[in-house]
Amino acid sequence: MPREDIGIWLIGAWGGVSTTVAVGLAALRHGLTNEVGLVTGRPPFDGLDLAAWDRFTVGGHEIRETDFATEARKLHDDSRVFSHSLLEGVAESLAEFDRNVRPGTLVNVGSTIEGLAGPKAEATRGEKPSVAVERIVADLDAFRSDNDLSHVVVVNLASTEPPQAVDVPESWAELSTLIADSNASPVPASSLYAVAAMQAGCDYVNFTPSVGSDLPAIDEYARQQGVVHCGRDGKTGETLLKSVLAPMFAARNLEVMSWVGHNIFGNMDGQVLDDPVNKATKVRSKSHLLDDILGYSTQSHVSIEYIKSLGDWKTAWDHVHFRGFLDTPMVMSFTWQGCDSILAAPLVLDLVRLTELAHRRGETGTLDALASFFKSPMGSEEPKFAEQFAKLLEWASR
Amino acid sequence: MPREDIGIWLIGAWGGVSTTVAVGLAALRHGLTNEVGLVTGRPPFDGLDLAAWDRFTVGGHEIRETDFATEARKLHDDSRVFSHSLLEGVAESLAEFDRNVRPGTLVNVGSTIEGLAGPKAEATRGEKPSVAVERIVADLDAFRSDNDLSHVVVVNLASTEPPQAVDVPESWAELSTLIADSNASPVPASSLYAVAAMQAGCDYVNFTPSVGSDLPAIDEYARQQGVVHCGRDGKTGETLLKSVLAPMFAARNLEVMSWVGHNIFGNMDGQVLDDPVNKATKVRSKSHLLDDILGYSTQSHVSIEYIKSLGDWKTAWDHVHFRGFLDTPMVMSFTWQGCDSILAAPLVLDLVRLTELAHRRGETGTLDALASFFKSPMGSEEPKFAEQFAKLLEWASR
Amino acid sequence: MPREDIGIWLIGAWGGVSTTVAVGLAALRHGLTNEVGLVTGRPPFDGLDLAAWDRFTVGGHEIRETDFATEARKLHDDSRVFSHSLLEGVAESLAEFDRNVRPGTLVNVGSTIEGLAGPKAEATRGEKPSVAVERIVADLDAFRSDNDLSHVVVVNLASTEPPQAVDVPESWAELSTLIADSNASPVPASSLYAVAAMQAGCDYVNFTPSVGSDLPAIDEYARQQGVVHCGRDGKTGETLLKSVLAPMFAARNLEVMSWVGHNIFGNMDGQVLDDPVNKATKVRSKSHLLDDILGYSTQSHVSIEYIKSLGDWKTAWDHVHFRGFLDTPMVMSFTWQGCDSILAAPLVLDLVRLTELAHRRGETGTLDALASFFKSPMGSEEPKFAEQFAKLLEWASR
Amino acid sequence: MPREDIGIWLIGAWGGVSTTVAVGLAALRHGLTNEVGLVTGRPPFDGLDLAAWDRFTVGGHEIRETDFATEARKLHDDSRVFSHSLLEGVAESLAEFDRNVRPGTLVNVGSTIEGLAGPKAEATRGEKPSVAVERIVADLDAFRSDNDLSHVVVVNLASTEPPQAVDVPESWAELSTLIADSNASPVPASSLYAVAAMQAGCDYVNFTPSVGSDLPAIDEYARQQGVVHCGRDGKTGETLLKSVLAPMFAARNLEVMSWVGHNIFGNMDGQVLDDPVNKATKVRSKSHLLDDILGYSTQSHVSIEYIKSLGDWKTAWDHVHFRGFLDTPMVMSFTWQGCDSILAAPLVLDLVRLTELAHRRGETGTLDALASFFKSPMGSEEPKFAEQFAKLLEWASR
Repeated sequence: MPREDIGIWLIGAWGGVSTTVAVGLAALRHGLTNEVGLVTGRPPFDGLDLAAWDRFTVGGHEIRETDFATEARKLHDDSRVFSHSLLEGVAESLAEFDRNVRPGTLVNVGSTIEGLAGPKAEATRGEKPSVAVERIVADLDAFRSDNDLSHVVVVNLASTEPPQAVDVPESWAELSTLIADSNASPVPASSLYAVAAMQAGCDYVNFTPSVGSDLPAIDEYARQQGVVHCGRDGKTGETLLKSVLAPMFAARNLEVMSWVGHNIFGNMDGQVLDDPVNKATKVRSKSHLLDDILGYSTQSHVSIEYIKSLGDWKTAWDHVHFRGFLDTPMVMSFTWQGCDSILAAPLVLDLVRLTELAHRRGETGTLDALASFFKSPMGSEEPKFAEQFAKLLEWASR
Repeated sequence: MPREDIGIWLIGAWGGVSTTVAVGLAALRHGLTNEVGLVTGRPPFDGLDLAAWDRFTVGGHEIRETDFATEARKLHDDSRVFSHSLLEGVAESLAEFDRNVRPGTLVNVGSTIEGLAGPKAEATRGEKPSVAVERIVADLDAFRSDNDLSHVVVVNLASTEPPQAVDVPESWAELSTLIADSNASPVPASSLYAVAAMQAGCDYVNFTPSVGSDLPAIDEYARQQGVVHCGRDGKTGETLLKSVLAPMFAARNLEVMSWVGHNIFGNMDGQVLDDPVNKATKVRSKSHLLDDILGYSTQSHVSIEYIKSLGDWKTAWDHVHFRGFLDTPMVMSFTWQGCDSILAAPLVLDLVRLTELAHRRGETGTLDALASFFKSPMGSEEPKFAEQFAKLLEWASR
Repeated sequence: MPREDIGIWLIGAWGGVSTTVAVGLAALRHGLTNEVGLVTGRPPFDGLDLAAWDRFTVGGHEIRETDFATEARKLHDDSRVFSHSLLEGVAESLAEFDRNVRPGTLVNVGSTIEGLAGPKAEATRGEKPSVAVERIVADLDAFRSDNDLSHVVVVNLASTEPPQAVDVPESWAELSTLIADSNASPVPASSLYAVAAMQAGCDYVNFTPSVGSDLPAIDEYARQQGVVHCGRDGKTGETLLKSVLAPMFAARNLEVMSWVGHNIFGNMDGQVLDDPVNKATKVRSKSHLLDDILGYSTQSHVSIEYIKSLGDWKTAWDHVHFRGFLDTPMVMSFTWQGCDSILAAPLVLDLVRLTELAHRRGETGTLDALASFFKSPMGSEEPKFAEQFAKLLEWASR
Repeated sequence: MPREDIGIWLIGAWGGVSTTVAVGLAALRHGLTNEVGLVTGRPPFDGLDLAAWDRFTVGGHEIRETDFATEARKLHDDSRVFSHSLLEGVAESLAEFDRNVRPGTLVNVGSTIEGLAGPKAEATRGEKPSVAVERIVADLDAFRSDNDLSHVVVVNLASTEPPQAVDVPESWAELSTLIADSNASPVPASSLYAVAAMQAGCDYVNFTPSVGSDLPAIDEYARQQGVVHCGRDGKTGETLLKSVLAPMFAARNLEVMSWVGHNIFGNMDGQVLDDPVNKATKVRSKSHLLDDILGYSTQSHVSIEYIKSLGDWKTAWDHVHFRGFLDTPMVMSFTWQGCDSILAAPLVLDLVRLTELAHRRGETGTLDALASFFKSPMGSEEPKFAEQFAKLLEWASR
């Protein structure tokens, strides 16, 4: 039996979160770090039949040209994460992972993301959607066979795409025809990757607010292919806190009159979100849950600003103006100073492990039990974190 | 059938929370306010067979000499709560409630609280514990008969007592003998009130960190008398947030390295807590739950300071220093600016209504289903708010 | 000698700041409040030959239809300012002031402000600029003669106008010709008011970011008319703090890498600023001073959002990311919770008193000594608050 | 002319601030960093005749046994300061500085500090004050001659001593007799170091709240010896902000009703301050200036808590409750997240450079022009930062 038999395929492989996934996985494989930050590192998950860290390897698609070590060094220099000795300890693994990275597609990624493409990705510009899908499938097949992998989980970590205005067909029959036949379909890149992953027999995790597999036609295809998928938009900071705090205001019947959230950060995600078109997708993903939890409509404002000096550190300031008994206004505010990649990467590793377990358990289609990981969880109507987490515990104990 | 058939008996009747209970109840009776801030004012509780607001009246014990209108006006002037028109609308009801207030006992309240006593309470100084109990029972009996009440719920809202070092017997037989025979027993005032309440057939709610009914012997007596009791220390602000936020850090395996809470406020509770002996009881009540939730010992610091200018507004600043993946330190901090009496009073009204319902349902002894209302819930080992609230929902649906 | 011989003419007379000026002045006249918040109420200003509070009366222009008592009551209800007894005590004075309010002009106020106009102001719609000026002059003359006033100071407190793209001539000869001859000049309303004020021999204070008298041609006219003027944009909150804190970072050679300011509030000013065109003027007025103080260009971001529930309370959250020795990033953040009208109104009263004194001292043209009161002080290049205030002290001691 | 002809003698040589002084000086000598954080690195100070960085060397007294590289590595690991490459670049210089460190005295340092002593300092335990002074003088003389130094500036960076209750004579004649004759005088260690420094012809800078040279007798001795001295307690964080912000509240006549400051940090200074006796000295040094600036007495509260996880990072949360016009309460709060050693070290280097220049200029006695650097500036009554800094600029331009 091969030592490394499960593949993690990262779309946006050399981005901040992906790089941290690579560094973190390598560190775990070599015993250079502990499992703090990993949901699956604590009870009761540590008692499940999850794959051990040393059984994973990493590959992926990327449109820029760089490598893991360079990006990890940049994170270290700009954002003061990873120690010098950690980076030395994982250097060899990172180089190994680099060899599994292939050029991503530019089909329907939006102009801001296009602008980041290097020569290899540029060489694919103009490829038909069906060609892109075939190329992705071939890359995944090669990854699996070259590395003797029993299974591969594809994770979307690419920059947020602009929202898609155009309608997409509801059935897999129609969608597959659309992709196969058209020179320029409205199907976004994130969905093409999802389709390709499923075609190659891989599970698909969408850690971004892009559409990905969140279409009835693709869910139909997942069940047909016998794979699982989940998403949408990893819940790492401000929204996590909203899904934890808003239920308290609801339970105590304290009326939230307004909830203002102001987010500042300086990583590439921030640069891409500086394009208002891309930001719209993100803000939409962050806004909806308050009303769902509170049961009434409150004035909610979310702003996201690119502040270069912050690097990968995201500071969120939230101001909650609420009314108590006898018409008395009160205020709660919080500040969250978290490092985006460091918060996201362990969740990606958790999701891969849990998804792989679900796959082995024979599940197919949407994994709604993983709702607690996402801002806009596919297959779940439950917006409250505690309830979402209780469902994860229940799933784990099955 | 009488209009007002349920009594609320407040120990510390003219304090800030009690005064707000009186103002709020009168406002609800007269339709001058809505049910914002009342847990029982929202689904599913509004569908239960809870007593309507116009069926309650108020009385109580107090060691100071003042009246509800004066204290309500002080809160209005010092802390900017209650509108002028609200105070006019409730004036008559407050005067009615005033007529039900009797002098409290000074037995074992501690020297700081003794210093607040007016002439009527002073006249009781030195009374034997057994005499105090008899006097309280007589006051409760008179309240019930004078007002044609079907039932009375006693709520402890008196200032925090100093911690009691002396051991108290575990059985009711021994405790009742101790109270009956001694001239100066170690049993604190809050427990004497609890015993008297039960002797008079009343339920007992302890909204303070004082001992009250939190003794095996008194629980035994409650079951013997067929009454219910619950407590300890209403969870209105910082601790509520801790019980909401700490489970998130635990669920995400983010290691809380330190949690510092700094509380400032300027009400009488603050003045009493300025006595370090009384503060010790309070800080103890606030500290224990972090380790329980996290599953390991973290450095926790709670400070409470009396800042006169804040009046009844309590500002809490909490700083949570936590470690994420790959040994990365991060920070969450929050500020809570809440008006203490306004937050506490509706919970008192909720507790009275829920306790009265439990009594009608035939329950006796400790009401552990009400744990979500308390910092140190009697009869419950569950420290997480979401889980406590789920239990309340489950109890409600019985 | 008449008791009330100095007039305060408020443009935007029934707005929040103006209403607070009226309430505050009436309260001072009747001894119902103290001088907290008034710069001229403390040494060394209280030793100057400033006019006493009981010598002022109030009038103004307004395009909406309401009255001082209604607006004051609204502020009381929505924003919890003014006590009930204060409002009773000033009612008569407010009614007296109401009788001096005349319809304002709609010439070049921008479409958002136009939308607020009531029937009386609507009746003036389409008036030529020269007609508007004549009408304003006539109103000022009548105010003076009807009330036996020795002098009138005009203060612009109207909502922020959109920025003016069109060039305005530099000399008074050209500008006066432009106003006299054109049916639709590019000169904004705030400047027409300034011209009319000066024509009527009044001083002019611009408490808003609108252009007002901040044109070389109008300064020339002020000197010609023997009046003084000053402005621009009262410095009440976040910008005040910037002008106090940024010099500290400069003095200590701590490199400000980014300074983010997020402002939320719910008054009419906020509603008008919700029009991005009007907001542009405001943000411009708030942004420039950091680079001036620091001596280099930093990334600065200012956002202003209308949050209805906050009423007249403005909460600013500022996040300063700075670099210390040996390339070490650090953070200072502050939260400012101030009531806009309550902060602004006393400064308006200060400015009127100081302007009137300058007029008596025989000064003409721009009053650069009052720079500490403004975000974009006319006639002053000094952006640091301490230095600005030192100049005010020096002027006072002349 | 020798390359390194000025000595910096650090008392508490291997502490956090001293270590950062050593690292920073070495980095400046080797061009490995810029002058951010150094007051003397910006105009107009960069135009003064200050000694160049490559002319300084470091020595000092210390009671613990360790070395600069070990302590710098600890700061790097615990507090994420200094980059790996910086530490490599300064390693040789640090080893050179280590060779100049001598055992400090334990005379009158207080029991908490005594507890930190290593074997070499322990060997001096019980030495008479006069012997300690002689030993210190000899160490300074040796440092000067061994390194061909033209001048030495002694800087006290040792842990805060407990407050001294006992009176000390006012004249140098009496004090010197007391030190010479007694076996156990009440003169604290910091003052013995000051006396020894002056006896050896060195200037003396007191960067701590300990007494040091802040005695009339020692000032007399300084003038007699022709040396300069200054202090007391470096102003690096919260107090700096108070001296910047309080003048704003005063200038605007906003009444500060309460000012609460809560400080948390985890360095050795914090551990020593965990001894309430030592903390008293520190809190005293931080508290006095508000009333001085405001001109009235406000309720002020300062707390300092040792929170291990924070390492050298000090987080201060300040809550300012102030009253505006018409009796309206408002709030400003700030959070300061600064690294103590990184903030302090450049000020120490500034003070050494400025003191050395004053010495060359022929000044003697207290350097009141340096007040802006200190919490309790010797020789200055001016508490406002802007005014203090204006005096420094004036001194620089002499």
